[in-house]
Amino acid sequence: MPELRFDCTTGDWVVFAPLRQLRPHATDKESVPSSPHNLSAEQHCPFCPGNESMTPHEIDAFRDSSTQAWQVRVVPNKFPALQIEEDNRRIELGRIFHKMGGCGAHEVVIESPEHSAVLAAQPVEQIERVLRMLQRRSLDLLRDRRFQAIILFKNHGERAGTSLRHPHWQIIATPVVPRMLRLRYAEAAQFFDREGSCLHQVILREELAARKRILSTNQDFVAFLPFASHLPFETWIMPSQCQPSFSEMKEELFRPLAEIIKRVLARLFVGLENPDFNLTIDTAARGDENQISFCWHIRILPRLSTAAGFEMGSGMSINTVLPEDAAEFLLAGSSE
Amino acid sequence: MPELRFDCTTGDWVVFAPLRQLRPHATDKESVPSSPHNLSAEQHCPFCPGNESMTPHEIDAFRDSSTQAWQVRVVPNKFPALQIEEDNRRIELGRIFHKMGGCGAHEVVIESPEHSAVLAAQPVEQIERVLRMLQRRSLDLLRDRRFQAIILFKNHGERAGTSLRHPHWQIIATPVVPRMLRLRYAEAAQFFDREGSCLHQVILREELAARKRILSTNQDFVAFLPFASHLPFETWIMPSQCQPSFSEMKEELFRPLAEIIKRVLARLFVGLENPDFNLTIDTAARGDENQISFCWHIRILPRLSTAAGFEMGSGMSINTVLPEDAAEFLLAGSSE
Repeated sequence: MPELRFDCTTGDWVVFAPLRQLRPHATDKESVPSSPHNLSAEQHCPFCPGNESMTPHEIDAFRDSSTQAWQVRVVPNKFPALQIEEDNRRIELGRIFHKMGGCGAHEVVIESPEHSAVLAAQPVEQIERVLRMLQRRSLDLLRDRRFQAIILFKNHGERAGTSLRHPHWQIIATPVVPRMLRLRYAEAAQFFDREGSCLHQVILREELAARKRILSTNQDFVAFLPFASHLPFETWIMPSQCQPSFSEMKEELFRPLAEIIKRVLARLFVGLENPDFNLTIDTAARGDENQISFCWHIRILPRLSTAAGFEMGSGMSINTVLPEDAAEFLLAGSSE
Repeated sequence: MPELRFDCTTGDWVVFAPLRQLRPHATDKESVPSSPHNLSAEQHCPFCPGNESMTPHEIDAFRDSSTQAWQVRVVPNKFPALQIEEDNRRIELGRIFHKMGGCGAHEVVIESPEHSAVLAAQPVEQIERVLRMLQRRSLDLLRDRRFQAIILFKNHGERAGTSLRHPHWQIIATPVVPRMLRLRYAEAAQFFDREGSCLHQVILREELAARKRILSTNQDFVAFLPFASHLPFETWIMPSQCQPSFSEMKEELFRPLAEIIKRVLARLFVGLENPDFNLTIDTAARGDENQISFCWHIRILPRLSTAAGFEMGSGMSINTVLPEDAAEFLLAGSSE
């Protein structure tokens, strides 16, 4: 049974999910990123078409209107960090030991029927479908009033914590607002109160003016490597107009967002030779959907280095690549 | 030239140290943890006796009084994250882009002349020498009024970010108090203001009363696996009497501290088969040495799992092992 425990030294809730010890590991079965026609990998893969019975019941899917074959498929995570059946009441085991049931949800969004296609190589329409599904699931999960935040992310590669290679995203609904997100909202709110503008939009304007760290732009989005990136080649994608919540993103933005994601991931794929990375969508928690001090954004976090004792002890990051050098490297030979 | 840049979305300063890209990597030269008499590894190791000329100038050392051979040796890090020559003045590059020189210090404390001895296998007297040297260097570095915090840590194994196998600690003096440490102090101060006691001493008392997560005790220290551990087998060592700063730890405590560190690391070594880990000493920053709301402590952080998108996106941890189960496992067959 998953549970959450409160760390009174930091204000974090920690998820305890002993069941996740049982997860399969990508490396156990497949030694190398498989070729497009690695049949043996596909035969064992619970996310491949034909193996639908290997997953728990389907939650949602987009299907081809003529063939009825699924294009994007959502299933519960078989080894969930949090579960809808659990309770979110606080239990006090003593003066400082507080816990609660592992209440929440943990879903898998299978990105494509193809076992080995990276997201950068998918058609824009397919990326758009994935984004639409992420929003659709977010909106559905938010109907459960116990869930306070929706964490949307994708792991690519072993160093990024992937346990199954077939490309997928994950959605975790948490019964608390993570302290780190509260902190980000608070910093943005303080800036707004002092300066009268959305912090993230000011960042965008200053990055566009500096013209050193921009990776790609279109009419609705900007991709850039932030001035104070925590990781080498860390890349953010942000809407050009402030909007606090991804779950309220307007219809007409899905296409331009899919386009810029494809372009950015392709640059990273080529420049860094298919790096392991995490991609997260930072969006407003419940109740903050209208806080115009904060703008939702995507963070792409290549996992090229290992956090060591300094990072663990201080919480600070050591980045060995200046973001302007990283941007120049990624743009070399391009007209963008 | 290292520099620090301010991340206005979180309040963190990020260290940029392009020079550290040039570091050697343990794995390049030595494929497996070497045997005690792996001469070829020792010939190339800058931390082995006889190779002293391969390091920058010696900062400090303890020597055998009869043979004059060094027992613990301190040298500058050849690829420093921060440097004493840099300036700590803030430079504003625009409304939100603030940076400063990479002012600080980065030293290496070579734990022993032996290339392949793990800390758990060292005699207690040797561990005591290392601890004395860490305190001596902390006190010396704090004489530079620009340095606000001293981060003391040890990396063991590749997954913990080790770049050289010869056992060593590192000391980084930072020109700012890391935000995460400020947060820990603030949580402890709030608790103190509300409850009238040191948070960490209350944690100790509650853990001792619960008797489920205690790994080892002696007259002056307690080692335990915290109720809300962020990582599987995370272990803390804390003094039984509140003291805010490791750099002011009293003379008579070095021996019992060395003893309990040896005992705890031996249990982890045997139980988890020489796991990769980081060890950090969380201690008061400059000016907080007398804040009795906070008690310094050691955190031992085994690196058995990989932080993935959920952790990166939310800042929350997923721990797959309950600390009481981990403690029971480590104590199996013991009379402690």
